[in-house]
Amino acid sequence: MEECIFCKIINNEIPCSKVYEDNKVFSFLDLAPVNKGHVLVIPKEHHKDILDTPDTILADVVKVAKKIAKAVVKATNADGFNIGQNNGSAAGQAVFHFHLHIIPRFENDGLTAWPHKSYEEGEMEKFAEKI
Amino acid sequence: MEECIFCKIINNEIPCSKVYEDNKVFSFLDLAPVNKGHVLVIPKEHHKDILDTPDTILADVVKVAKKIAKAVVKATNADGFNIGQNNGSAAGQAVFHFHLHIIPRFENDGLTAWPHKSYEEGEMEKFAEKI
Repeated sequence: MEECIFCKIINNEIPCSKVYEDNKVFSFLDLAPVNKGHVLVIPKEHHKDILDTPDTILADVVKVAKKIAKAVVKATNADGFNIGQNNGSAAGQAVFHFHLHIIPRFENDGLTAWPHKSYEEGEMEKFAEKI
Repeated sequence: MEECIFCKIINNEIPCSKVYEDNKVFSFLDLAPVNKGHVLVIPKEHHKDILDTPDTILADVVKVAKKIAKAVVKATNADGFNIGQNNGSAAGQAVFHFHLHIIPRFENDGLTAWPHKSYEEGEMEKFAEKI
C-alpha cells in the first residue's frame, strides 16, 4: 500500500530499528515504547487488521513473534511480557497494517491492567448465546 | 493438569459460559470482563504460556480467535477489539494455561492505552542489536 507507513518501513523508505526479517515477516522497535525493548511484528503483505489477514500469514507471524519474544525477554532481562493486537481506532489501532506488540514487563513497572466490570445475574448466559 | 482451573473448565468440572468448542480449542466468557462480551480462547492441551505452546496449536488458537472476534463484534455491536495475551505474573497472567483475551471496544469507553516512554539518542540501536 502506497501510503502505509509500515509498508514504507519494510521497503526501506523510512528508517527503523529492525530486529528481524524473513520472506514474510518483519519486526522492529516501537518508536514510542511502553517499556524499552517493545517491538512490533508485522507481515510483509499489507492487511489492515486480524480479520483481514489470511490464517497462513497469521500462523507465520505468531511463530516468529514467539521467537522474538524470547529474544526480547533475554535482551531486556524482563520478568514477563504482553502480546497485544489492536483492531480499529476505537481499540487504539493507529497504523492500519496488522501488527502485534510485544512489550517486556518488569515486577513493579507501574503498568496496571484495565478495570473489570461485572455481569448481572443471567446476563452472561445471554452474551454467550449471542456470541 | 490436575490443579489448573482452565483444564477443569474444559473438562466440565467447573461451570462456564461457553461460546465455542472443537477438538483442540475452547472459548468462554471472562468472569470479570474489561467490557461485557470479553472472551478467552484457549487450547485444550495444557501449556503455561506462549513460549510453552507448540506452533501448530498456536495456529489453531489464532484461527479460531479470528472467527470468535467477528462473532463478539457482531453480538456486542463493538467499534473495534483488542487481542491480549499475558506471559508471567509480572505481565498480569493469573492462570498459567495459555489464553488469548478478546475484548470488544467502543468509542469513548474510557479505557486508555499505557503511557509511552522515549529512547535517548543511540539507545534504540543498542536495544535492536541486543534483541
